[in-house]
Amino acid sequence: MIGKPVADIDTPALVIDLDAMKRNLVRMSEFAKKHGIRWRPHAKMHKCATLAKIQAKAGAVGICVQKTSEAEAMVAAGVVDVYISNEVIAPAKLARVAALAKTAAAQGGQLAIAVDSGEGVIRLAKAMTEARKGSGVGTVIDVFVEIDVGHGRCGVEPGSAALNLVLEIRKHPALNFAGLQAYNGMAQHVRSAADRRDAITKAVEAVLMTRHLIEGQGIPVGLVTGAGTGSMLLEAASGVYGELQAGSFLFMDADYAKNERDAAQPQFEHALFVKAQVMSTHPGHVVCDAGHKSHAIDSGLPLVHALEGEGPLDYFNGGDEHGILRPAAGSTYLPALGRTAWLIPGHCDPTVNLHDVMIGVGGGLRKGVVQRIFKVDARGAMT
Amino acid sequence: MIGKPVADIDTPALVIDLDAMKRNLVRMSEFAKKHGIRWRPHAKMHKCATLAKIQAKAGAVGICVQKTSEAEAMVAAGVVDVYISNEVIAPAKLARVAALAKTAAAQGGQLAIAVDSGEGVIRLAKAMTEARKGSGVGTVIDVFVEIDVGHGRCGVEPGSAALNLVLEIRKHPALNFAGLQAYNGMAQHVRSAADRRDAITKAVEAVLMTRHLIEGQGIPVGLVTGAGTGSMLLEAASGVYGELQAGSFLFMDADYAKNERDAAQPQFEHALFVKAQVMSTHPGHVVCDAGHKSHAIDSGLPLVHALEGEGPLDYFNGGDEHGILRPAAGSTYLPALGRTAWLIPGHCDPTVNLHDVMIGVGGGLRKGVVQRIFKVDARGAMT
Repeated sequence: MIGKPVADIDTPALVIDLDAMKRNLVRMSEFAKKHGIRWRPHAKMHKCATLAKIQAKAGAVGICVQKTSEAEAMVAAGVVDVYISNEVIAPAKLARVAALAKTAAAQGGQLAIAVDSGEGVIRLAKAMTEARKGSGVGTVIDVFVEIDVGHGRCGVEPGSAALNLVLEIRKHPALNFAGLQAYNGMAQHVRSAADRRDAITKAVEAVLMTRHLIEGQGIPVGLVTGAGTGSMLLEAASGVYGELQAGSFLFMDADYAKNERDAAQPQFEHALFVKAQVMSTHPGHVVCDAGHKSHAIDSGLPLVHALEGEGPLDYFNGGDEHGILRPAAGSTYLPALGRTAWLIPGHCDPTVNLHDVMIGVGGGLRKGVVQRIFKVDARGAMT
Repeated sequence: MIGKPVADIDTPALVIDLDAMKRNLVRMSEFAKKHGIRWRPHAKMHKCATLAKIQAKAGAVGICVQKTSEAEAMVAAGVVDVYISNEVIAPAKLARVAALAKTAAAQGGQLAIAVDSGEGVIRLAKAMTEARKGSGVGTVIDVFVEIDVGHGRCGVEPGSAALNLVLEIRKHPALNFAGLQAYNGMAQHVRSAADRRDAITKAVEAVLMTRHLIEGQGIPVGLVTGAGTGSMLLEAASGVYGELQAGSFLFMDADYAKNERDAAQPQFEHALFVKAQVMSTHPGHVVCDAGHKSHAIDSGLPLVHALEGEGPLDYFNGGDEHGILRPAAGSTYLPALGRTAWLIPGHCDPTVNLHDVMIGVGGGLRKGVVQRIFKVDARGAMT
């Protein structure tokens, strides 16, 4: 496909506008530099080792993942500084985590993981100790205590519960207490900039209180990690967070674009599209060949991206394999049979997970050419 | 994995209760026999050649698919009687359809396809003619005219528009007019049995009127094909439909179970589950490791399937990788850290599409063993 025009891309297909993606990457890199903060973008979003390496070249310190199997896919593809920003409880999976910690260390990288229970710490320590026995290599894993700063999902309560976990971690020589994870996922999608600010202010207060308690015991809190594309400027400006996990900035989906932008937030552009084709036409609507097996709709239906000369269209759910396009209010425009429709996915992470590859196009969506194929290395990696 | 206990299945994983699936299959087979109707289950649901073959042994005449790449995956895996129940417009894709028609015919099978536009017919004929030139083999493809019987998606208007398409098809020696496709997808999910009956009554009237018009020109309408799991008993009893496309009956998802069951409808059971694990516990809720990268939520969140001795739980959206479980009304039951939770997906088709394999368990979800691994051959086949 390399060198072929956009028109030759079979539909539906996931297409990256490489020019827009590069601009987003520069914006993020400059933002992190300006704030003097590390960024460890979340690879749960793109699941692609090549993109992780491109981000590393732009200054990222490594990647986050949510799943052990994602970490395995990334390490296998040569991305060896990996933080599993999530809890792992199954002993068989923890054995894989421990094995992966050794593999990553042997390649000059490192593995880190989050915990939110004493039982989780004990099981992790046991797995790490077992892995040491096998090889004699004394690999240590960085462990972050996850505190719940408002999401209401994982994480212990800020304060003494977190301190207790830290004390438990420090009992185990194979575990290194590396800091706190304080991620408010809900806050990312709060539309009002003021409300997002309130949410992250509370998160920062919870972190400060917890850090104070831990440091009061003479235990240093190495790093506070968290933040997503929706709120990252608030964590970056907090003086408390040392690392940003934002991932979606690279592609910017329709959902994040609905947030009222804080003036201090970089203006990221849509860089990920589903190329679709009109395959049935009718008075008042046309049908394209991309449904929710081509793009995730958990955060809303896709937007239709009109190129120059095209009228505005609204996308309606047509089921797993179809999308129904109607003229937007005030327009009568409908594309002809066989024409291309460009969709901006509602949510990039689960959309990417539906595809084996992302097709990188340079020179724009109308006249561009395919420059690079990105394999979705961790597609379907959910264990 | 074969022979291993259920407990050894890593999470999240897609698990088939083989005993329940077999019962569903028998119910469908008996239903079709009783009504003297062909069934051609939709493989867009399971995307699995092994399951297609199991269905064929139980009496299915072949499979439907929605996409050219699904058809290719099925033919490559030895399922050679395939109907693409959808329109294909891109010339490059039609060339693949034509090539596949030859491949299927060479293996004693056949390919069929739907059309809903004159342009689509002309392009299909051109592709078939081109393919003949290459080989000298005069393969003919069965063509169904899709009429819109109430879904408002694809399909021409019933009546003269359909007749015009039939006349166009008959101009081309490589195309065989095989009948009408009359599928009302919307009607499948109408909750009230009476409303579903009204919707399919209208569909039947549209088919009868259109068939009358076509047969009035001395052109036989070979077959009327359509129906899904939600409405199939109505089409089966209509005396007009000759073939049922229902696919979901095999697994029965949470959405179909919400339909008010017509007394004449076989009672299908849930046979597809996501095995998940509790990986974080809190007062009032626990978190499991299955989010909407493990199961599709386009038709609602999954139900939690309580095994004997477990209390009722409600599933709340926890994002891409997490599910939040809370006690159902009137209960205080919460599972402990590490415990298994069984989820019944809201919609089986896009859920299966997220997975590379389905793990077949015999002997029940608690004490069963893995008997068979089913590859999702057409996973991600969307073009």
